[in-house]
This record gives sequence, C-alpha cells and structure tokens, in this order.
Amino acid sequence: MRRTYNRANYILKDSEMKKFLFFAACCMLTALASSAQIPALERVEPMFWWTGMHNPDLQLIVHGDHISSREVALNYPGVKLVAVHKVENPDYLFVDLRIFSSAVPGTFPIKFTEGGKKPLVYNYELKGKDHATNRAQGVTSKDLIYLIMPDRFSNGDPSNDSIPGMLEQGINRAKMYSRHGGDLQGIMDHLDYLKDLGVTAIWLTPAVENDEPNASYHGYAVTDHYRVDRRYGSNELYKKFVEKCHRMGLKVVMDLVHNHAGTEGYTIKDMPMKSWVHQWPTYTKSNFRDAAVMDPHVSPADRKQMLDGWFDHRMADMNENNPYVQNYLTQNHIWWVEYAGVDGFRLDTYPYNDPEYMAKWALDVRAEFPHLSIFGETLVWSAANQAFFTEGNTVNRGFDTHLPGVTDGVWKEAVYEALNGKEGWTDGVNRLYSVMAQDFLYKDATKNTIFLDNHDMSRFLSVVGEDINKYKSGIAMLMTMRGVPQMYYGDEILMKNFSNPDGLVRADFQGGWKADTVNKFVAAGRTAAENDAFNYVRKLANYRKNTTALQTGKLMQYIPENGIYVYFRYDDKKTVMVVYNSSDKEQSTATDRYAERIKAAKKAKNIITDEVIDLAKLTIPEKSTLVLELE
Amino acid sequence: MRRTYNRANYILKDSEMKKFLFFAACCMLTALASSAQIPALERVEPMFWWTGMHNPDLQLIVHGDHISSREVALNYPGVKLVAVHKVENPDYLFVDLRIFSSAVPGTFPIKFTEGGKKPLVYNYELKGKDHATNRAQGVTSKDLIYLIMPDRFSNGDPSNDSIPGMLEQGINRAKMYSRHGGDLQGIMDHLDYLKDLGVTAIWLTPAVENDEPNASYHGYAVTDHYRVDRRYGSNELYKKFVEKCHRMGLKVVMDLVHNHAGTEGYTIKDMPMKSWVHQWPTYTKSNFRDAAVMDPHVSPADRKQMLDGWFDHRMADMNENNPYVQNYLTQNHIWWVEYAGVDGFRLDTYPYNDPEYMAKWALDVRAEFPHLSIFGETLVWSAANQAFFTEGNTVNRGFDTHLPGVTDGVWKEAVYEALNGKEGWTDGVNRLYSVMAQDFLYKDATKNTIFLDNHDMSRFLSVVGEDINKYKSGIAMLMTMRGVPQMYYGDEILMKNFSNPDGLVRADFQGGWKADTVNKFVAAGRTAAENDAFNYVRKLANYRKNTTALQTGKLMQYIPENGIYVYFRYDDKKTVMVVYNSSDKEQSTATDRYAERIKAAKKAKNIITDEVIDLAKLTIPEKSTLVLELE
Repeated sequence: MRRTYNRANYILKDSEMKKFLFFAACCMLTALASSAQIPALERVEPMFWWTGMHNPDLQLIVHGDHISSREVALNYPGVKLVAVHKVENPDYLFVDLRIFSSAVPGTFPIKFTEGGKKPLVYNYELKGKDHATNRAQGVTSKDLIYLIMPDRFSNGDPSNDSIPGMLEQGINRAKMYSRHGGDLQGIMDHLDYLKDLGVTAIWLTPAVENDEPNASYHGYAVTDHYRVDRRYGSNELYKKFVEKCHRMGLKVVMDLVHNHAGTEGYTIKDMPMKSWVHQWPTYTKSNFRDAAVMDPHVSPADRKQMLDGWFDHRMADMNENNPYVQNYLTQNHIWWVEYAGVDGFRLDTYPYNDPEYMAKWALDVRAEFPHLSIFGETLVWSAANQAFFTEGNTVNRGFDTHLPGVTDGVWKEAVYEALNGKEGWTDGVNRLYSVMAQDFLYKDATKNTIFLDNHDMSRFLSVVGEDINKYKSGIAMLMTMRGVPQMYYGDEILMKNFSNPDGLVRADFQGGWKADTVNKFVAAGRTAAENDAFNYVRKLANYRKNTTALQTGKLMQYIPENGIYVYFRYDDKKTVMVVYNSSDKEQSTATDRYAERIKAAKKAKNIITDEVIDLAKLTIPEKSTLVLELE
Repeated sequence: MRRTYNRANYILKDSEMKKFLFFAACCMLTALASSAQIPALERVEPMFWWTGMHNPDLQLIVHGDHISSREVALNYPGVKLVAVHKVENPDYLFVDLRIFSSAVPGTFPIKFTEGGKKPLVYNYELKGKDHATNRAQGVTSKDLIYLIMPDRFSNGDPSNDSIPGMLEQGINRAKMYSRHGGDLQGIMDHLDYLKDLGVTAIWLTPAVENDEPNASYHGYAVTDHYRVDRRYGSNELYKKFVEKCHRMGLKVVMDLVHNHAGTEGYTIKDMPMKSWVHQWPTYTKSNFRDAAVMDPHVSPADRKQMLDGWFDHRMADMNENNPYVQNYLTQNHIWWVEYAGVDGFRLDTYPYNDPEYMAKWALDVRAEFPHLSIFGETLVWSAANQAFFTEGNTVNRGFDTHLPGVTDGVWKEAVYEALNGKEGWTDGVNRLYSVMAQDFLYKDATKNTIFLDNHDMSRFLSVVGEDINKYKSGIAMLMTMRGVPQMYYGDEILMKNFSNPDGLVRADFQGGWKADTVNKFVAAGRTAAENDAFNYVRKLANYRKNTTALQTGKLMQYIPENGIYVYFRYDDKKTVMVVYNSSDKEQSTATDRYAERIKAAKKAKNIITDEVIDLAKLTIPEKSTLVLELE
C-alpha cells in the first residue's frame, strides 16, 4: 500500500487537529523515519513549458520520496533558479524558475541531489510558444457552442473503454452513473455532423482524468490536472482533436474546475501541506448560496462556508488562498491553452471560488492569451446576482472580477417563463422582456453565454412539455438574442428527460456506438419529427452563421402587447425582426408600432420557410416565433 | 364662461394640430382680438420669496389678461430684473429676478405698465429665511413614518367639508371615491395618539388643492401648487400643523407630484404654451413600464410613451423638459419647505419623470436644504430596478439621480413572500434573505423607505389572511430592518381590506368623525384584538425609538435554516437579535451558529413580553418572530 502523508481529511477530530499541528512541526523528522513508497521522483509539473510567455515566472511542483531533503540545481541560458520552497510534506518541493526572454527552446536537466544518494534528474523542456492565429481564438457572440459530455456522445475507440489500474472499471450503458465509453475519437468522428448543423464551437465537460471509483464519467472530480482521462484518449489525441476542429473552422471550449478536485488525485491523497485544501472539523458542505458572497450583511461564517465548504464528499475544496495552489491551478490552465490551443474556458461553479484569486487568475490568463474567451458558471437567482460576477460590472463595488461572461441562467429561466408562464406584469412573456431590460447591469451582456439547457438541468424539450411550437420558439430566441448561444448535445434531435431523479438528461447520442440500432447522426436514422427539429435548428444556426446582425448587431426590443413580443437585431447590413406570440391562439398584429426599425421595409423573408411576406400585418400561430429578414 | 387659451388637449386631431401651429404663430394678434375674461393680474407665483437662499435666481410666473403686452419694472436694493419672457400665450409673462445676498427682507412693487392703460402693481415680499434647526430636518432611519390620507383620518373642522365654488361639492362617507371631510385640524387633534404610538414622522398624501370634479380626495391631481386644499384648511393652517408637529418632536413629509397635474389647474386650462404639457395626437396613456427607462435595448417610442404618456385622463403629463415648467415646479417645492418647514419629500411616480430634470431638481432642492430627506415612489420589479433610481448607485451608468432613497416595494414583496410563501431556494423566507443580500446594489439602502402597505395597495393584514402571528412578524420586521420604516394609518388597529375593487383600503379611521359611534383612538374604543395589535406596534415602535441599534446599527443576517431566519442589528451599545420562524409549526433552534454576534451573551430580553430567556436554545411559535435584546 502506498504511503499517504496528508490525505485530505474533512472529518478531522479535535485530537487529530492537535496531532497534526505537532506532526507538522516535526514533519522533517517524522518523514525521514517513515517508509517511502512513492518513487524518488514521481512528478514534475508542469511537465514542460514554453519560452516567450508573458509571465517569466514558473513554479514547478515536484513530488517524490523525501524530495525536500535534496538540493536543486540547473544550468540553462536564460533560466534562473529563483527559489526552492520546502513545505510541510517532505515529499514535495516547489521550485521557482524565471525564464527570461533570452531563453531559447531546448531541454536542460534539473538535478535533485543529496549527499550519499544517487542524483535524480528531470530533463525539463522549454518549447517555443506557438503564435498561430487559430489557437486561443476566443468564442464570441459570432459562435454557436455545442456542449458535449465526452462519455455520452460517441464511442470512437472501444479499446479505451476500460483502463487497467483505474478505479472504475468497465462500461455499463444501462446505468446513467456508470461509464458508457464515449471518447474523443467519437467526437472527432462526428465533426462533420456538427459543422453541418451550424455549430462553430464545441464545449466538452472536463476531459482530464477523473480516476474516481464511482460516477467518474462526469468529469468534475479531477484527479490529474495534466492528463486527459485515458478512457477518452490521451493528451496527444486531445491536441489532435483541437487541431482538427481548428482546421474545420470549429473552436474548442475547455471546462475548468478551480473550486475542487477529486479526492483520488495525488495532491489530495498526499497533500503538500494541510492548507492545500479547506479543512473542517467535521465534513462541511458549502451552503451553495451565492448571496453570501455579495451580501453586505453577510455573516462571515456563512461566507466562509459558501467559499470553503466542500461541494461533495469526493471533491476536496481547494484552498485558493494558498499561493502554491494558485500557481498550481493557474499554470495548469495556461499550460492547456498553449499545449492544445483551446479557444475558451468555461469555469465550473464560479461563485464558489475565492473572488480575489479568480480575478488575478483571469488577468494572468488573459495576459498570456488576450483573445481567449472565458465564461463562468453562475446558476444564481437574478440578473443582478449574475452581473455581480462579471467584468467591469458596477455593482461589485470597487472590485473587478475580470470575468468577461457568465452562463446566463436568468435569461434561460425568462425564456421558459415566456414559453410556459401565464402572462402578468412581469410574468409570462413580460419576464423575458423585463430580464432583457436588465442588461443595464452588465458592462457587456453579449459576452454572456445563453442556453436552454445543459448537463445539469432538465432537457429543454421536456420542460416545455414536448410542445414543438415552444421548442422552436426557444431555439429561435437562442439563435437571435444577444450573447453566445450554447446548445446541449442532442437538443437538435429532440432528446428529452428531466434531470431528476434518473440522470437521463445525460443519455447517449444514439448512433454514437457501433451497437446502436439507430443512428441519429443521419437523416435516415431520425424520425420525421426529429428531422423537422434538426432542420429547424440547422436552418437557423446556418442563417445566424452568415448574418452579422444576429452575431454582433444591436438589439431593440418592444414592450410586449397582447402577449406578442417583438425585437430586432440589426446592423448596417441587415435587420432581422423576431416576433413571438406567447398566447395559446393564433394572433395577427399590425406592425406600425415598430416603424422605428421597420422603416421603409414592406416585405420580409421568413427565414425558416423562405416565404416572402407582407410586413404590414403579421399572423403568428400560438406559441410560435417568426424570424423575419426585412427586405 | 372663462376664456381658455391653450387648454391641454390630449385628443387633438391632425387638423387641430395644424390649426394650433398657425395659431401659435399668430398668437399675439389672435389674443388681442379675443375677449378677456381673466383678471388683468390674476396670479404672481411664487407669491413671495426669501432673502438668503442658496440660488439667487427666481422666475416669477405672471398670469393676467394680456399681461404680455405690458412692461415690467421694479426697484429694490439687491434685486435685479434680469429678463422678461413672453411666451405663446399673451396672458403669461415669466419674469427672471436675481436676488443678491445684499437684499434685505422687505416688500417692493412690481409694476406692469402699458401706454394708455392703468398700471398693474404686485407688491412682492421678500421674507427672511428661517434658519431654525427643527425645520427641514430630514426623515431618516431613526424615524417611523405614519402615512395619512388627510380626507380619511379625522374631520376636525366640519365647516370646511364643502367649499362653495369648488368643483366637487359635499361629502359622502358611504362612497369611497367621494370626499369624507377629513382635514388638517383632524390630524392636529390626534398628534398625541401618534406620539404615544411611537410615530416620529407624518407623511400626508398631497394636501394641496385638487379642485377636480370627481375623486378629488386622493390629492394627486394638483390644481393649485401653491395652495392647501380648502377642504383641508389653509396654507396658514398647514404651517401651524408643521409647527405643532415640530414642537411635539414629530416630523412632516410632504408628498410631491412632479409628473402630472390636475386638468383643472390654471396653467393646464390656460397653458402658457403648447409645450407646457406633453401633447399626443390622441389620448395616450403611459405604458407604466419602468423597464423602458433603464433598458439599453429600449425602443425610443416605448421610452417616450413611458415618460411622456399620461397617467390618467384627468392628469396632464407635465413637460419637464420645458425650462419654464422646471422652474415652476422646483421653485414651488422649495417654497413649501421654506414656507412651512417640512422635513422631507416623498416623490410620486418617480420613474415617470424626466430623469435629467429630476436629478437637477434634487441637486437644487438639496442645495437649499441639505438635511431635507427625499424618497421616490418606485413600484418596480426588482431590487436592481429600484437601485437604478437611487443616488450614487452604480448601475445607472454615468448618471446620478441624486435621489437618496426609494420606496422599497421589493422589500415589502419579500416580507409577504416570507410570511405567505412556500419555502424554496429563493422562495418563502429565503426570498427575504435573498433580497436583503441584494443591498449591494445600493449606495445606502438605509435611505430606502420600507413599508408593509400604503394607500395604493391592499392592507397588510388582509394580505396575510388576517393571521395575527404573520401580522406581528411583519410589524417586527418593519421595526427592526434597515431603512426608514413607514406605516399606513390604521395598520395598528387592524384596519384591513383589499385595494380592488372597492377602495376600502382608504376607509376612515373610526373615531375621527364626531358622528362615529366607536373611537379607535382610545383603548376603550378598540376591541381586545385591536388593542393587542396596537400595543404590539406601540411597544416595538417605542423600543425602536430608544434603540440606536435598530435605527442606525449594522445589520447581519444568516442564511435561513429549517425555515428559521435570524438577523441582528447591533452597535456599540446594544445587540438586537430577531428570529422569525416561517414554518407552520413551533420550532426550537440552537443558537451556536450565531456565535459571531451572540458572543458571550447567555440571556436575552424578549422585547414584547419583557421576559428574560436563555439564549442557548430558542423556541419560536409558528409564523412568529422574536425580538430579543441580548444581555
């Protein structure tokens, strides 16, 4: 059995606390006396780095048996060994390097020596930074993001379904919390499908290692920040995936988890120091209250529990106040961009992170990759609460998060209310109008990601009661509103189900497995209704792709009247008019009220049907949406 | 019949529009040709003014038959006639004076002369500014405001019930939209009652003249900005009312209506110029959408309708972009403060006013009276929408309203939800917690007026289903939360009813009329339940009056658990703990979670019962609130 030194212990009794303090004080001695069972030099991370980075500083984490008793030496032009930090756990060293602009790509040995013992050597490589313009491009309101859970989309390489030695073995497609075998190769095999659909960016839930014994498929319990989960492929394959996407004009969003890490990761099982994660006398969950982060009347205890409480038993809450943790995470994220060329980051559970660290993180990352896009997951109550977390917002007094965008869950709820709700002053379709009006809260609401569903919530189709009119209206709003639209895999083929209790919202995309009897990736495998939905999405997505008014045009909305909500997207090239009839019956409406935007136009093209209609009076079926290009 | 020149005409046909334009161009000629039926010098307003004001400029509005054909002259040390403005209507002159600091109080003639005609003279008085410190004191979070509709509280002087020549004659207490005869004398007769209750400030709905033919009692259709409605008393009596209040340690809030004016006012029936009010081709109501003021995606047409549309057929929408209107309103408001010494302003329908004018208005008024308090009526959807209108807020980008506080309707709705709602993540009591957390949106939320009801909404008691526990919990929250608490007359004696459809929320305070068979102003006239409520309010109001922690102390709140919501108000003198059990059953709770604020305290006094209890474990009946002073 492997020796564990500082395993994250969220159930730490008082007596153990005292013991730990004594332990820490004597750690050198104790450590020397204990029997070593990890390799003498297990890890050096980041495994390699680059010349020409904005930040010249680099902090290596070195993990190895009693590594802290060794001296560190290196000799390479343009690289300076600035400091070596010994920490509580003698099996760690943190090595500070400065890489001057004079350094050229190459490899040099870093030597770890101790009198009387065989020197340990790690050959450190500095690669040259890749300045290709189709890397770290940023995902913007010009894009359409398609969210995929890699385990559930397509199994392109059955040989990696189960990896010997990993904690969760085998696949079982009948169980929603087991692994199903999807992988990077499966996604790479279906890029044509996505391209045809009109998608321009792919967001994968985390593909890095989650070597957890249960439910490892979801990806948010990271056990190795530097390694793609072998059930999905390899680092090299991930890089190829991004390169193939880029060649096809698709972008890639990487999903990052700052707040917590799987308890089976090496830095958690054998922590560098007690303060690597947040420790509690007994297991303490987060209270999951974003309000506690922004509340001027907050109890410090509530705030601490929000930020430092654990997300789950199997997810240790990283101590983002610890500068070693900060360096570890930030460098890892920068490493992935430079290594694989990803175009944007989605940040998991944004409000649970330490705000000061996250602000610094964003500045550090953006200093390296100015075009990279970043949006944070903020499942919060109101637009004001969302805006609190955004860059340049004005409500988070004197503090800038430097986070450009958030997941606009408030917009999503407003669309649902517009589709399902009963009309009231701010209910029904008036909710959507009212929420859009609250864009005054943001510096730039177009940086927000808008969506109808994702892996953590019920499928859109189910929430609208499988009403195809409502489904199409939601899709139309998604494709024509401000922000970066994001779909969830399978929405286009009418995948459904509720998030509770059975996890079926993470069902497999049929046709992604060789054994599947139907293949929804091709028209012939889809039902008529599925093709109707698919074609609707495809038509709008591709129209959006070629219509700058929908990507970057201005938005003008009108107060709903008689349940009819009208807004325009427009630029100097085109004007697109969107008309949603929220009532349960077909309605006609005159358009003279919209003269400001319709101007001299008399006709408009229905983007779905290609029909050219008279603009003077519009007829809209119940719960339906017209997308009209003015002529 | 009196000649009307420019009667506000919201139903103005196109042909009439053209006619008006022609008419305006020829107005001098036309006017000379028409028969004069108004006095040669009907009005000069402000009727008098003061020396020693911050702003040396004063613009007199002069109304009289063909007054514009006369020359204006005056001669008084320190007073300069700066300009005389002729406008469209020949019956008006606007006369600009500058009153230098050298001017001393006194009276001087202003002469209006025209060759061959008898000169007209108005003896203008400059009084000395009153610097007494108990005038224009400001109403703050130290106060408790009691809102009264003067027509409905007490009839102290039956001789003024009906005034010959006014449009609405007689009283009819059986009809909610008729006048009931309440007046200033009635209020003055019951100041002891209010003082005893613990009230420290009185807000009257507008007491200035509303000489309208119907429903003139409500006060928001002002027909004479410079005159107290004779059914309430006189200007002199109003001044005495304020003075009596001040002697008794009570403050007075005056209710102002900028946005509109009753159509029977002289400036509306015979407008100085067409642009005095907002004109529409056909009668156009406001859309009543505050969102249209703040929406970055707003249609200019929607915004215009919000700001310039009429509030009601009988209420002309003042054109606050017109500098003559601006001067007219601002001077009138300053006049009332200096004349009567009122301590604060409540601004009716704040979001409907022109934002730029209102910001300038607030600066102008506050320059004259730095301690005067101001809060605006904002019945809007969310805390963000409310905050948009507040001074120093950060969401109304680059624009400061200079409005210190708003009516916190969002807080009210949150209290209702806490009392009546079913618990959910942000529902039930969690709504109140969540709304309080949104105080980050305000520069200073303690300037907001908090309330449970007012004259425009259903009575609190009715909305909580006449549940006395809920009633007391609401009162407890009102008395212990941040902000300026405001009650509505009769809440303390369990007055009830819904705002629709019968207007019974504006019922008379029983005992205020000689004919009343019961008198709720005295304990003997109240039922046991009414005395229980009265004593509860009285106890808390008087405790609040003597407890700085509740007035100006800090607030700390805790995330509700098991439906129990705990917050503290505290300063260096005292700590008050408030515990609300939102569930339908009695609950007990340990208090160790609140150690940060309880500190070493072991006991606490229940403020209602005076009982001293053990703090370690609290038992709270269903839907009830404990107000505890820590010992």
